[in-house]
Formats: sequence, C-alpha cells, structure tokens
Amino acid sequence: MNREQLFEQIRQKRSFLCIGLDTDILKIPSFLKDTSDPVFAFNKEIIDATQDLCVAYKPNLAFYESLGVSGWASLEKTVNYIREKYPEQFIIADAKRGDIGNTSNLYARAFFDRMDFDAVTVAPYMGEDSVKPFMTYLDRWVIVLALTSNKGASDFQFRRNETGESLFESVLKTSQKWGTTDNMMYVVGATQAQKLEEIRELVPDHFLLVPGVGAQGGSLREVAEYGMNDQCGLLVNSSRAIIYASNGENFGEKARQTATDVQLEMEELLLEAELL
Amino acid sequence: MNREQLFEQIRQKRSFLCIGLDTDILKIPSFLKDTSDPVFAFNKEIIDATQDLCVAYKPNLAFYESLGVSGWASLEKTVNYIREKYPEQFIIADAKRGDIGNTSNLYARAFFDRMDFDAVTVAPYMGEDSVKPFMTYLDRWVIVLALTSNKGASDFQFRRNETGESLFESVLKTSQKWGTTDNMMYVVGATQAQKLEEIRELVPDHFLLVPGVGAQGGSLREVAEYGMNDQCGLLVNSSRAIIYASNGENFGEKARQTATDVQLEMEELLLEAELL
Repeated sequence: MNREQLFEQIRQKRSFLCIGLDTDILKIPSFLKDTSDPVFAFNKEIIDATQDLCVAYKPNLAFYESLGVSGWASLEKTVNYIREKYPEQFIIADAKRGDIGNTSNLYARAFFDRMDFDAVTVAPYMGEDSVKPFMTYLDRWVIVLALTSNKGASDFQFRRNETGESLFESVLKTSQKWGTTDNMMYVVGATQAQKLEEIRELVPDHFLLVPGVGAQGGSLREVAEYGMNDQCGLLVNSSRAIIYASNGENFGEKARQTATDVQLEMEELLLEAELL
Repeated sequence: MNREQLFEQIRQKRSFLCIGLDTDILKIPSFLKDTSDPVFAFNKEIIDATQDLCVAYKPNLAFYESLGVSGWASLEKTVNYIREKYPEQFIIADAKRGDIGNTSNLYARAFFDRMDFDAVTVAPYMGEDSVKPFMTYLDRWVIVLALTSNKGASDFQFRRNETGESLFESVLKTSQKWGTTDNMMYVVGATQAQKLEEIRELVPDHFLLVPGVGAQGGSLREVAEYGMNDQCGLLVNSSRAIIYASNGENFGEKARQTATDVQLEMEELLLEAELL
C-alpha cells in the first residue's frame, strides 16, 4: 500500500487507528481454548468485529514466537485472513528486527515475500545496511524506532551528542537519507506527546506509528495536536485496551465498542484538522 | 550453562569457536533438497561433523523465518538435536530482539522456555526494560549488541556524547548495571579488533561474542591479542566459511576441515595465553 492509499483509507474509515494483535494465549477467553487454533480464532473475531473502525493491524511477533511453530502458523493464518478478506488493511509486523545487510535481506524476505505484511518495525542501532533492505520492495515500508514509549527509552535515546542533539533526533535525521516518505515511517511513543512537535520539525511528512495511547497513558488529543500533518501522518496503536476489553463470550462486541469510542474521537480530530 | 562451565568447555575442546548456522536454503547442496527437511538435514550433518571442534552453535533466526512455519520447525528441530545429542554445546539465538518489558518477556519465553537456547542476542536501543527480562532465567544469557561488524555500525555506534564517549561505550557502561558477568555478554565485531583493547578496559570480565572473523576479514590472532581474558572471554563466530566450505556431497567433511584449521589456531592462542 502506498502513502496516498493509506491516507485515502484514513479518510474513508474516518480513523487512523491501528489495532495491536498482542494475542496472549493466557489472556484470551477460555472458551476459545477448545478450538484447533485459539490464537487465530481470537484474532479472526477481533478483526471481523473491528475492521471498519481501523486502518491497520499490528501483530506483535513476540506473542506468536512464544508459542513456537504453532504460534508462527497462527501468525501466517492471521496475515492471510486479513489480506484476503480485508485487502484495504495496512498490516504491520511489530518485529523490531535489524541485522547486517544480508541478514536484514532475509528478514525482509520473511515479512514481505513469505508473508504479506505491508511494513516491519526495525531497530536502528546497526545503521543503514540493517534498514535499507526493507525498502527495496515496492509499496512496502520500514518503520524505524525513533523514540519509544517504554521506561528504558531514556537510557540511550535521549543521549546527547557534542552539539546537543539527542540520539533519537540523530536517528530521524540520518535515516531520512536512506529512504523516502513513501517507504519509511517512524515509531514515536505517545508518552512523549510534547516531543512530537520537535519531531515534526525534523520529519514533517513521514507517517508516525504511535504506540502507547490508552494503557500506557498517552492522550490521543495531544498526539493529534502535535503530530498530525496534512495527510494525517499518524497511525495510533491500541492493543490491550481493545482486544482484551472483555474476556467473556462477547469479547468481539466489547472490542468493537472500545474501538468505536477511539474511532469517534479520531473522526472528531480529523474533522477539526479539516482532513475530512 | 554458567560461565565456569563455558570456560571448562573451552579448555576441554581447546577451542572458542562458535559456528553460525546461517543456513540458506538457496546455498545448501542440491542433493539435500529431496529430503523432507533440507535445512535440518544440512544442520544435522554440519553439527555432527564439527561438534568436537566448537563450543557453541548460533542459528541466525532470519534464515529460518524467511521459510515461514517450516523454517521455524527446522530451527526447533536443530536446537532440540543439539541439546539432546551434544548437551555441552552453548546455543545462541542470533535474533537481535528487544522490545518493551512485557514484550521482551515473551521473547525470553520463546527462546528459553519454548526452545532451549542458552543465549539470545538483543539490540540495546530500547534500554533496560528491553534487556532485563532475558536475565531472569538461571544460567541463561543475554548478549547485548555493543559494536557490530557491519558498515552501518558507524552510523550511530560511534556517535559521541558531550564527554566524548561513543554510544557503544555508553551501552557497555550502562548495561553493566543491569546484569552480571554470569548472565550478560556483548557482541563486538572483529573488524574493529583494535577497539577490543578499549572495550576490555570497560568490560574486563564479560564474555564477548565476536562475529566477522573470516568472511568479513577480521584476524583471529588480533582478536585474541586484544580481547582474551583469564577465562578466554571470547566466543569467535564463523558461519559461511565453515558451513559452505563445499556444496558437494562432502560438505560435512569440508566443514570439518575448515573448522579444524580454526580450532588449531585457537588452541595455539589458548596455549600462548597459558589457559590450557
């Protein structure tokens, strides 16, 4: 999916919501555990219940890998299901990969050839050759970690160089030379909403994937205020608050209710920004 | 495996060789492709042919992920095979993971519970909570990327702060507070052998995983000269030079020959250092 198409989806759905499929076998409703593939059964119901309210799904790879081969099978089924039934969805592998060039090539092959993801999150520590292989596929994206929403973000991401520039700022500046606004996005944590204003000065046109609204306490309104651009430029992720809204038989319906609340707030923010 | 046991293995095998199982389906001998699991068949023969010459095996996850479910199955079979037949081997998941705390917990579960790896490589960009979950398992290890051997290493790892300290030095200093010499190692690329001397001032007692000897041109003698400590403190990895020494039917035997050359050089270096 290219940038224009993504913006068009945002306008059609009146939403810039990304739903994180952090599907934990220990947290899904117990009645699903009798099915042949509980993780996929859970994802399928969540997806069917929310697909018109969001523009993206983001499986978090760790949850699937923790189940070994069967988890990886659930992941592939989930991606295939979305791709076949809701081809307009943008699908993000939240994988935080990144290795030397020839190895990153293989990760790109895993997520873009073997599976049909639109985008992969990548850690920038190893630099250019670890990131570029993900940008050689037409209309596929690499999403580079810039400023994350966890406590440990402060360990290195705010570390200033001789000219007072933070590491995450250097990542934003340097990595822009590697790709374009059509194949690169950035992860920017919502717990740092005030930082979004500075970040927008460095990357005015890139899409930003913003985790940490909801469970981690970021404010959607603040994120929009500081982070929105003239193509929206935001994918705001919510995982647990939506997918675990209920652990009863009505979990799909409850997920839909929670996602609707978010979508309605997003619609309002898009209207205020005159993007609808 | 704990640090004493690892050193004991190094002394017994007279080797600090780690063999990287970067098993590319496109590069393995064609006659294997008729078997039910060519990747595992290849690994099994490489392992049987080299197990007395090395102390560690390091599957590179990207190669397995690029094959999807079947690749993940080959990986699990490979780890189980080593664990059952050669329990004294140290097995490293070269995965370069790292995410927020609760997600890193799941990666740790994937590699230490679901599979039986001894260690996982982790990128430090997201800081403490992304690394610590890997250190909660007894006698398991996290191997933090410090200075890598790829070209992109220079993009951020050498970036100096106000006091002139490189990012990789900050990673070494800061991360030492998170764990101990019994549950943490560092990746230090051999193409930077001269840097090992400075690194040893910061981390005199930690084991270092050193990729990039051989194909990437680092010198084993230099690595030993600058990096060895009184428990050897080095695992030097070689992948392609060993596992692709031949792509004929004799690939195991040729891998063994190449690994033997490395082991003999390592034995000499261990003797010179009076560790045998």
